[in-house]
Amino acid sequence: MIIPRVLKGFRDFLPDAESARRSLYNNFEDVFRSQGFLPIDTPAIEYSEILLGKSGGETEKQVYRWNDHGGRDVALRFDLTVPFARFIAEHRSELIMPFKRYHIAKVWRGENTQKGRYREFMQCDFDIVGASSACSDAEILLTAWYALASAGVKDITVRVNHRGIFNRFLAKIGIEDKHTDILRAVDKIEKTGRDTVKKYLTVLCGIDNAESILEYIEIRGTWDEKLSKMKDMAGGDSDDSRRLATIARFLNDAGRADYFTLDTSITRGLDYYTGIVFETTLNELPSIGSICSGGRYDNLTEIYSKDILSGAGGSIGLDRLISALESLAILPESSPAPICMIACVNENNFGFYARMAEKIRMAGISCELYLEEKKLSAQFICAEKKHIRFIIIPARENPDENSITLRETGSRTDCEFKDINAVLTRLRAI
Amino acid sequence: MIIPRVLKGFRDFLPDAESARRSLYNNFEDVFRSQGFLPIDTPAIEYSEILLGKSGGETEKQVYRWNDHGGRDVALRFDLTVPFARFIAEHRSELIMPFKRYHIAKVWRGENTQKGRYREFMQCDFDIVGASSACSDAEILLTAWYALASAGVKDITVRVNHRGIFNRFLAKIGIEDKHTDILRAVDKIEKTGRDTVKKYLTVLCGIDNAESILEYIEIRGTWDEKLSKMKDMAGGDSDDSRRLATIARFLNDAGRADYFTLDTSITRGLDYYTGIVFETTLNELPSIGSICSGGRYDNLTEIYSKDILSGAGGSIGLDRLISALESLAILPESSPAPICMIACVNENNFGFYARMAEKIRMAGISCELYLEEKKLSAQFICAEKKHIRFIIIPARENPDENSITLRETGSRTDCEFKDINAVLTRLRAI
Repeated sequence: MIIPRVLKGFRDFLPDAESARRSLYNNFEDVFRSQGFLPIDTPAIEYSEILLGKSGGETEKQVYRWNDHGGRDVALRFDLTVPFARFIAEHRSELIMPFKRYHIAKVWRGENTQKGRYREFMQCDFDIVGASSACSDAEILLTAWYALASAGVKDITVRVNHRGIFNRFLAKIGIEDKHTDILRAVDKIEKTGRDTVKKYLTVLCGIDNAESILEYIEIRGTWDEKLSKMKDMAGGDSDDSRRLATIARFLNDAGRADYFTLDTSITRGLDYYTGIVFETTLNELPSIGSICSGGRYDNLTEIYSKDILSGAGGSIGLDRLISALESLAILPESSPAPICMIACVNENNFGFYARMAEKIRMAGISCELYLEEKKLSAQFICAEKKHIRFIIIPARENPDENSITLRETGSRTDCEFKDINAVLTRLRAI
Repeated sequence: MIIPRVLKGFRDFLPDAESARRSLYNNFEDVFRSQGFLPIDTPAIEYSEILLGKSGGETEKQVYRWNDHGGRDVALRFDLTVPFARFIAEHRSELIMPFKRYHIAKVWRGENTQKGRYREFMQCDFDIVGASSACSDAEILLTAWYALASAGVKDITVRVNHRGIFNRFLAKIGIEDKHTDILRAVDKIEKTGRDTVKKYLTVLCGIDNAESILEYIEIRGTWDEKLSKMKDMAGGDSDDSRRLATIARFLNDAGRADYFTLDTSITRGLDYYTGIVFETTLNELPSIGSICSGGRYDNLTEIYSKDILSGAGGSIGLDRLISALESLAILPESSPAPICMIACVNENNFGFYARMAEKIRMAGISCELYLEEKKLSAQFICAEKKHIRFIIIPARENPDENSITLRETGSRTDCEFKDINAVLTRLRAI
């Protein structure tokens, strides 16, 4: 006998949980579609060289990788961005630019499973490529907000920063060559704490520079005040600072400025961002971390193609979001139970029950058939456990000709109806 | 530079194809839900011993299998049935029996990629466990029909057989011990041809038995005539033959008998079926093979649990079905394009455009924003290529106060409206 179990870091989803997840991503899908984002799909398995081309050592350690039957070095995707870059490079001539896509799919990372991290999780990405304007930055930021708001998650703060200005600041103090390590260190400040980051930065570039970096990432004030301080520290006005000002104006004109803040501590650890970067905090549960993150990447396709395409995108961590909504008890109800069940009064008449059920379903009312001639009391208990609201009890003989009982499980009240059409009229009226 | 390419046997889905796929499986999902089937999900990666526990050598050769970071022997699921058996054994106490589930997800098989076979494909499974009645057999058969019919695929024949009667027949002629090999050989008759199967069977069990098997699987006539002949050859009436007769009556009472036929050549190669088995043929394109198959399995959970649970289920091969619908030119249209696009007349006003778009989307009308201040003619061409039906052209200055032009891309006609509310009234009237 084999013990039935899943791998560490993996999970089954039972109907209630899976139903909640599906209703959430249907929500996101509706928002993306309503904005003209189009669905795509890419393989879960790709050549390792494709997936790992631009990643650092940390990713490489986490990726599921092996040799397939043909001896090819293959891996499972660990995010939806890298496959998208490959997709764009490969299909550019078939796509109409600017191209907006969304992709809701699983990714896999063999990372440490402590702290509720999973090795298989669902990501929900949205991107625009082929547009480099501040409009497309603003569109990505607004889309993050619309998608979360549509799921009932409105008490959020989208924290925005600009990589370019930070890099200008690092250049000004002469340590631009260390920007990858610095960005990654700063990215972890909420996890590791200020002191650890300061120590690390001191080793990396000296105490003066470490303090300067901390001063930069701790800039406070209104959006305008912060931007002004950032410019001071980064050597003055630039295309990047002007763009951040423009984005702020767009968000304001769109009536959504309240949900966005400028935050110099946001860097995103990933190498490929070149412009804005953002993270999204649940105001009531900041400790869970960012539930939607992204930014602009100007060179994402460069390893696959000479054509440089500018893009910007965001990614919602669906499973983390669901955990958060559960903690906050605001996960939308999404009972997967059907509205009614036809009791199996007489197994011989199953075909007639199936026909009744078809009629009810045609009216848009979900209807389950009980499949065995058990005691009615057992069938009622089953329906109640399943949270089915109504039980239809046909007559034992000639179910098509005799009257039908409709039982409401909550109140356990019964009503008689002359036939299935009368039952249907009643169900429709709910 | 890395050449952007996918692995052999894998595919990208561009928006039109992915949109068609999604609309098809949303269809199936609606049917399953309407019948009280509940969604579940299981991990793509499992312990190899779990996935391969009951499979023969052929499956083992095809499965993607490797050692993970912790040295565990893991594999990607190659179907949705085996993980479901593990799921049921593991979560039995959390589920209300009879339990109906559906699962629409990817599976992977490293099989030969000739003849349009893919190594990654989407399966769409529906099962009932904890009910052993003929009602549940009929429910699975009817569900296969409802699901396909809902997708506009009504010209189908569901070919039904019973493994138990075939095994009784093999027992009667004394070769029951070879039933696994015989079932697999018969299962391939449409692919390999009658002569090949006959030769193989002759080697396996002698010429007389081979001819007898061919006689059995070539029984012709009405459902009743066939069943009568089957009984004759299998040693008379039995629970299995009575069940097949009951199922036939249920399908008839349900008003769907026309779509079902009894076919003694259907065996399904897989080991785990014990009762009815079925395949579904597109009448206009039989050569594509079965688009929905399944059957009853009485011992599926036996390797994980002492509790024996009876189940029955079916599986729609979504990608094969889509190929078939494309060949027949009956794939439902599912344009992913939004209804309208707001032109970017003046990039400075992007925030106001975003606000207009939000208003339109709130009314349930999908609306894309053009993201760069390009020439209007270029923006119009983009909208036409994307099959967007309307372009909204705000005034260059004060877009909130001045009149708005609405252009229909098909006819290239323009109309003036006093404000966005007036545009919305027009769009709603379409």
